[in-house]
Amino acid sequence: MVNKTSSTGLYRKYKASLQKIADIKYAAAVLQWDQETYMPVKSAQTRARQIATLAEMAHSLFTAGETGKLIEALYDRDDLKDDEKNNIELSLYDYKKAKKLPSLFVRQLSEITSQSYQSWIEARKANSFDLFEKDLDLMIELKRQEATLLGYEGHPYNALLNEYERGSTVAFLDKTFDSLRQPLRGLLDKIYHRPKVDDTFLHQYFDPKEQWDFGMELIKQLGFDFEAGRQDVSEHPFTTNFSSNDVRLTTRIDKNNLGNMTWSCIHEAGHGLYEQGLPEKEYGLPLGEYASLSIHESQSRLWENNVGRSEDFWQHHTASLKKWFPVQFQHLPTRDFYKGINKVQPTLIRTEADELTYHFHIIIRYELEKLLLEGLLKAKDIPAYWNEQYQNYLGIKVMDDKHGCLQDVHWSHGSFGYFPTYSLGSLYAAQFFNAAKKQIPLLEQEIKSGNTSSLLKWLRTNIHCHGRKFSATQLCEHITGEALDIRYFLDYAGKKYSDIYKFD
Amino acid sequence: MVNKTSSTGLYRKYKASLQKIADIKYAAAVLQWDQETYMPVKSAQTRARQIATLAEMAHSLFTAGETGKLIEALYDRDDLKDDEKNNIELSLYDYKKAKKLPSLFVRQLSEITSQSYQSWIEARKANSFDLFEKDLDLMIELKRQEATLLGYEGHPYNALLNEYERGSTVAFLDKTFDSLRQPLRGLLDKIYHRPKVDDTFLHQYFDPKEQWDFGMELIKQLGFDFEAGRQDVSEHPFTTNFSSNDVRLTTRIDKNNLGNMTWSCIHEAGHGLYEQGLPEKEYGLPLGEYASLSIHESQSRLWENNVGRSEDFWQHHTASLKKWFPVQFQHLPTRDFYKGINKVQPTLIRTEADELTYHFHIIIRYELEKLLLEGLLKAKDIPAYWNEQYQNYLGIKVMDDKHGCLQDVHWSHGSFGYFPTYSLGSLYAAQFFNAAKKQIPLLEQEIKSGNTSSLLKWLRTNIHCHGRKFSATQLCEHITGEALDIRYFLDYAGKKYSDIYKFD
Repeated sequence: MVNKTSSTGLYRKYKASLQKIADIKYAAAVLQWDQETYMPVKSAQTRARQIATLAEMAHSLFTAGETGKLIEALYDRDDLKDDEKNNIELSLYDYKKAKKLPSLFVRQLSEITSQSYQSWIEARKANSFDLFEKDLDLMIELKRQEATLLGYEGHPYNALLNEYERGSTVAFLDKTFDSLRQPLRGLLDKIYHRPKVDDTFLHQYFDPKEQWDFGMELIKQLGFDFEAGRQDVSEHPFTTNFSSNDVRLTTRIDKNNLGNMTWSCIHEAGHGLYEQGLPEKEYGLPLGEYASLSIHESQSRLWENNVGRSEDFWQHHTASLKKWFPVQFQHLPTRDFYKGINKVQPTLIRTEADELTYHFHIIIRYELEKLLLEGLLKAKDIPAYWNEQYQNYLGIKVMDDKHGCLQDVHWSHGSFGYFPTYSLGSLYAAQFFNAAKKQIPLLEQEIKSGNTSSLLKWLRTNIHCHGRKFSATQLCEHITGEALDIRYFLDYAGKKYSDIYKFD
Repeated sequence: MVNKTSSTGLYRKYKASLQKIADIKYAAAVLQWDQETYMPVKSAQTRARQIATLAEMAHSLFTAGETGKLIEALYDRDDLKDDEKNNIELSLYDYKKAKKLPSLFVRQLSEITSQSYQSWIEARKANSFDLFEKDLDLMIELKRQEATLLGYEGHPYNALLNEYERGSTVAFLDKTFDSLRQPLRGLLDKIYHRPKVDDTFLHQYFDPKEQWDFGMELIKQLGFDFEAGRQDVSEHPFTTNFSSNDVRLTTRIDKNNLGNMTWSCIHEAGHGLYEQGLPEKEYGLPLGEYASLSIHESQSRLWENNVGRSEDFWQHHTASLKKWFPVQFQHLPTRDFYKGINKVQPTLIRTEADELTYHFHIIIRYELEKLLLEGLLKAKDIPAYWNEQYQNYLGIKVMDDKHGCLQDVHWSHGSFGYFPTYSLGSLYAAQFFNAAKKQIPLLEQEIKSGNTSSLLKWLRTNIHCHGRKFSATQLCEHITGEALDIRYFLDYAGKKYSDIYKFD
């Protein structure tokens, strides 16, 4: 039957089949979005089972149905177009991987995820890790099982990392972090020996409604299409999407800190611009998906840091800052604002960290995750380990769990192996931004005048439109002509901070 | 296999199976809720296919899977508990009905629904029925097909009506409306001969934010549990739910009319209280569902009209009215407020109609729907027919489609046969409220003091907790000891309006 059908006909069936599965996955994403934005508390348990049912159904449709046969049959055809071939190869890879996880395991994982997300929320509210411990242990155990089911060479962490960052390994991460540690420490040492910069202007009262409006204005100016997306408020800012025409950002607002909202808006908008730039016609197919998490993060970091914490950017945007917050900013020179928003200082909260100490937040989590997956540590050991490492790496004392090991949502979501992609994202961002500057001669001028459209166009053409066609490594070579090189980040950081802190 | 399994085991399987299908249906409901509250415009097309996939999947799981066999096997068992037996009988009825609709038809209907909802939105915006005509014709054709697929005796309308109001017929509705027409006209005649009451106080500027807060306060006081539900804003107010622990109300706010928001809030809260009162343990099973649409509407009408437009209710609530809107209400006696909010006057918009002329809005729609389903009228004929009937029944001229045949969302949703349940709801509400007053001796006193908890408890015990156990007719007999009798409504209306308008 399959053999006689034309490749065009087969491909059409494959596409219909994958798009139907995508409908279900995106429906689950709508339910998750609602769960973290608007859902009433008593709905938690039922919502968990609703999401689990959809997850199980999407997985069993993909693995148990005709889909596999279609993919395998199409893989043997030699008359497919390039894009079609790309989709089929990636789908075959996904299919083989998905077949390793039983549908019941997927359901269980989804249920435990909702459950542990709820207990994380409660633990945070009560500022007590104990309330999260049991569910987290369950989650760790499931993730260990998942690693075994997926299979791996070397470290079990590789199996989980591969879910976010195809082909990446503990060996690669260890090497990357090892080469980053010393130069970063060197840079920080120089900074710590210089007078502190003043960022107190960020820590005043800022009307929440006006913060919201300012954030929305910024996002709009960056090119986020509000007819194909929106922004809401959630406990932990995130971006999700239900197609490239429906991208949802969230932010949080601290009335005594303008920085939280501002750079979380720019960060999430960076993710959102990527999702809106993915090819619409590839809905539900691999080429309609993002390349990898580190590439996703390269987009958010590039906008947040390389653009959104640059002096060029604020040369234009301090005007709107003064429009929204005249009392707070009327006498502040742009240069002082720029210096303040780039203040380097060890802090407890990852999402509020500067660009340099940020990597140590990641390294701590990465090393801890490896120990948890090896079974060398249990959930109960986390607070002590965490606090010790914050002392070792950042020289600061963790006052409580809320400002310590309860600060991130990720583990409650089962996202082990996710954190390292944040650091990789910053490294890719520096390398990509360097390439963009070379290829867009007037880029700095444009940013100074508040125009980031050439940059967005460059990202659309070089990164967004490819979807999952290239892995992170391939994409980096494709755009910059070389593999990931941390020197781009170190050069960028060196220049920026020696200027701000005045050292050589 | 099925024969050897214990009834307990079989029932457990049946329950799991139905609850999984409910998960999918409720997921579709979340997507629809989002579509009408927060979804960005460019998402419309993809959202339509996502909802259609879920609808098709729920339907095909229910009709093509093991579910049918389980239900049929359980139907033959004689060792089920009463509640279990009720569920099985209702599920068998649903199953046989669902089997009549092919899954592809369900998908098509769902897709056309989203599409025609979008064109209704656009047509309303442009105030031009033409933009809706094509999709509406498609929809009418599908509903005619649906009636044929479902089968019916007598009029095709019976098949569609039965979807909302099991066992109800055109014969029953014709008889009910026929007996309502003359007494209503008589009552209206008397009213029209009396001086008009003044309701200009409702038509002033009311700050939207304060309207919202006032509405939320009202809903809370009625007993709506905001930990198991929420309220948002939409084009057309509605209530939906994703379990009895997650009930979503919507409202709309007109800054120059306090009435719109106030009684839409109370109305939807009435629906919401019913959904929150459905038995949680019957999630996904027939006994966890509402009895019928007329019973649903009896709940919203009872709260909106019998309670929310009573003098007793406002004896307490004018205080909060004066708190929220001191400028507008400080000098207004409760009696004048009560008279104004019950002003009887033919109007163009159904949802803003008084309790009496309301029924004519319904009769016009009901008669038109019958003609459309018989194929005697097409979509293009609607505006002229509509305008003529508003002249005939209400003596008013329809100025444009937005205030005419484009005012309701229902047809764009494919809800033909739905409108009559609104009138039935008012009739049931009057009969139920009469019974409640007899059974709760202090009810009027309580309402005067702002306490409606005994009433809610009475509704919970007599109506909500039964779910779908009884049909509307059975429930009415169960509670009031007799069949639906329009005299309860006419008595209520006669007493109320002769007092307000001062006639005998």
